[in-house]
Amino acid sequence: MREFWAELLGTFCLVFFAVGSAVYGIETIGFVGVALAFGLVLLALYYALGPVSGCHINPAVTLGALLAKRIDVATAVKYWIAQFIGGFAGAAGLKFMTTAGDVADQTGTLGANGYGAAVDLGGAIIIEILLTFLLVFIFLAVTSKRGKTSFAGAAFGLVLAAVHLVGIPLTGTSVNPARSLGPALFAGGEVLGQVWVFILAPLVGGYLAASAQPLLYARERESATPAAPEEA
Amino acid sequence: MREFWAELLGTFCLVFFAVGSAVYGIETIGFVGVALAFGLVLLALYYALGPVSGCHINPAVTLGALLAKRIDVATAVKYWIAQFIGGFAGAAGLKFMTTAGDVADQTGTLGANGYGAAVDLGGAIIIEILLTFLLVFIFLAVTSKRGKTSFAGAAFGLVLAAVHLVGIPLTGTSVNPARSLGPALFAGGEVLGQVWVFILAPLVGGYLAASAQPLLYARERESATPAAPEEA
Amino acid sequence: MREFWAELLGTFCLVFFAVGSAVYGIETIGFVGVALAFGLVLLALYYALGPVSGCHINPAVTLGALLAKRIDVATAVKYWIAQFIGGFAGAAGLKFMTTAGDVADQTGTLGANGYGAAVDLGGAIIIEILLTFLLVFIFLAVTSKRGKTSFAGAAFGLVLAAVHLVGIPLTGTSVNPARSLGPALFAGGEVLGQVWVFILAPLVGGYLAASAQPLLYARERESATPAAPEEA
Amino acid sequence: MREFWAELLGTFCLVFFAVGSAVYGIETIGFVGVALAFGLVLLALYYALGPVSGCHINPAVTLGALLAKRIDVATAVKYWIAQFIGGFAGAAGLKFMTTAGDVADQTGTLGANGYGAAVDLGGAIIIEILLTFLLVFIFLAVTSKRGKTSFAGAAFGLVLAAVHLVGIPLTGTSVNPARSLGPALFAGGEVLGQVWVFILAPLVGGYLAASAQPLLYARERESATPAAPEEA
Repeated sequence: MREFWAELLGTFCLVFFAVGSAVYGIETIGFVGVALAFGLVLLALYYALGPVSGCHINPAVTLGALLAKRIDVATAVKYWIAQFIGGFAGAAGLKFMTTAGDVADQTGTLGANGYGAAVDLGGAIIIEILLTFLLVFIFLAVTSKRGKTSFAGAAFGLVLAAVHLVGIPLTGTSVNPARSLGPALFAGGEVLGQVWVFILAPLVGGYLAASAQPLLYARERESATPAAPEEA
Repeated sequence: MREFWAELLGTFCLVFFAVGSAVYGIETIGFVGVALAFGLVLLALYYALGPVSGCHINPAVTLGALLAKRIDVATAVKYWIAQFIGGFAGAAGLKFMTTAGDVADQTGTLGANGYGAAVDLGGAIIIEILLTFLLVFIFLAVTSKRGKTSFAGAAFGLVLAAVHLVGIPLTGTSVNPARSLGPALFAGGEVLGQVWVFILAPLVGGYLAASAQPLLYARERESATPAAPEEA
Repeated sequence: MREFWAELLGTFCLVFFAVGSAVYGIETIGFVGVALAFGLVLLALYYALGPVSGCHINPAVTLGALLAKRIDVATAVKYWIAQFIGGFAGAAGLKFMTTAGDVADQTGTLGANGYGAAVDLGGAIIIEILLTFLLVFIFLAVTSKRGKTSFAGAAFGLVLAAVHLVGIPLTGTSVNPARSLGPALFAGGEVLGQVWVFILAPLVGGYLAASAQPLLYARERESATPAAPEEA
Repeated sequence: MREFWAELLGTFCLVFFAVGSAVYGIETIGFVGVALAFGLVLLALYYALGPVSGCHINPAVTLGALLAKRIDVATAVKYWIAQFIGGFAGAAGLKFMTTAGDVADQTGTLGANGYGAAVDLGGAIIIEILLTFLLVFIFLAVTSKRGKTSFAGAAFGLVLAAVHLVGIPLTGTSVNPARSLGPALFAGGEVLGQVWVFILAPLVGGYLAASAQPLLYARERESATPAAPEEA
């Protein structure tokens, strides 16, 4: 049950704080500031929650871990439920701040993802697949038995920052269905109509990352237990 | 006594340098620059002072450590005194620079925290509670017996940077009563009238973080001694 | 063969994501954002691919490793082929995004390197030699037998970010022939005519870095096996 | 003799690349970009050169190490000579780029330090003393026998970034006599007349840092050998 709470709390924090950095301050901290907020929040959460649940806090990462046989189906389902609840709670917190707290929503859509302005539907699908591929590929590699490193959290967090530097100008960067669904439910309208892209494409990216792993790391050398950061 | 000096010196440095980066340069380095200054100063101080005192340099962190039974009451009181003296000294140094050193105060309030412009009182209380929750939760997790990691200082420092990216546009980000009281005493006026929020809310956040810890980490596995970074 | 795929995939990612951050967003993330994208992508890839191939993903780094007797000629040739294919594939992906995906190319040249605007030919050659010298010197030192450190990937990635902060205003920063050739082939015209500089100068920089290594590290203490990150 | 070359090469790189980032690009990368260039170049150099010389590449750091009895006088003198030669060579390289390479000097003074615009003489002396105190204090602590950590280079490099975020708006940030003297010799005029501040104040800061060390770390537990990063 600790794993459930870790994934729920972690996803809540990622949405409330990192998506929140865009909602409260995209005009003053810019895309670089938002990208750093995502990366540094994930880096810190990884070292805090990793020993408990592996700190996926992202359904696409959990799908990759499942396909790479790091976790079983029951664990994956438990993680997914926790992640979507956490993402919804984070978005509810943002909604609360912008109404009860008298805070302006500088994104206009509670930080939801979208396409159409800078990239079309096909491009959005491709970029989200590829960005999620990179994120999940890095995660699976640095938490694998052979590639395991105390830098796993730094690599996982900082590549999320990089992924946002690349993707914010296009789709706002999802790479995480739970991060996208929460804000979209509150934003509604066109944003909610587009949210399927930001649920489906990251899952495809996670699937591809798990498929690519055996090309580089021998499957049999990988651990079958939940990924957890080793200590030095 | 070494612990006392470490906490005093650390809090002085956090206020004089990190708050100072806003006072001297908010117009040129922006919110991202100030957030990085806070994060990188804390990261470096943690590795320097951690082996001596655990490098709390924040009364809310000390409250969390006390409630998590990492330190005893006498140590906590000693730390709090050192932190408030250090914060006052840091603010005095900033005041000195802006008067004797002919430096313009680009914040107008010596870097003090406030609410009303971007967020109302209720929103300020909530955001400060939540931001401090994240900071103290990360600290307690990465310095706990089970979660202990050589990355503790990186996680603690970099999450402070993230917390500032989120909170600077709203309240300027306190999450640290000693960081807030010093500048407010020198700024006076409305700022001093609001300072209670930035003393109380971070303490509530620290309390909640300590309360949440046992949900994720078994209490009995935690160390009862002062948190200190392990070496690889 | 795993090494071949690792170098190909890594160079693809470096070009598609890091060069892509400029193509999609140079106007919004600025030079600092692009520099961080290069650095953080390389940092993450190093920890993911390092255990497989050493994560050179740069012909100049491979030349340095060859001259420092870390790898043999056959391996170097294999790496070079993989890197140029990966760089070409990355640029093809960028081309695809800007045509099929309806994404504007904010660099106008698919992120290719060039000179003439901020620096003349001679200056471009010198700065690329020196920037690559720094990159390869750091790589060879932190992966040498004596200098080996778990921070190798952090040093290698973050110095690439620094190198971009210095060089983007001048040449856009190549320091990597495979990163430069791919986009230049698609951009064509004047850019393609200048690409020889960004193939030749980085190789000279890599040669100089390998030559300087024995001045600081005794040659006989270095490993003759492929560089790989140690685990703590 | 390896130590001499390491200090010379390191100081050359710090001036040519980090000061160079301001000379070539202060208008496009801003103060945050320059601060990151300083920090990330030092971080990478520390892991590369640390095992050889301890990577002081700063006369104030060497003074601190001497006073803390980490190195003897003969070594300190050797390091100082190497550092000033390296700083001069770095500035000569910058001069070469701005003349032979047709590169505009965006700082107007080859990146030299100065006072008068944002801070007066007294304020400049105080801020340089305090900034250098922080830098050298961190260095001595994280390389001391008790505080020794694999994060030493991260703390040393990233606190230099923080120090620049604080000081660039005031004096441009010296904290390093060798970094200041080189560019001032080429810039001449008023800048050269002010350079004594940026030689003297950092040395005072280094002296104070060495004096504060025993308050926090028991002197007898410190190593008497040159500081070098441990490996995990």
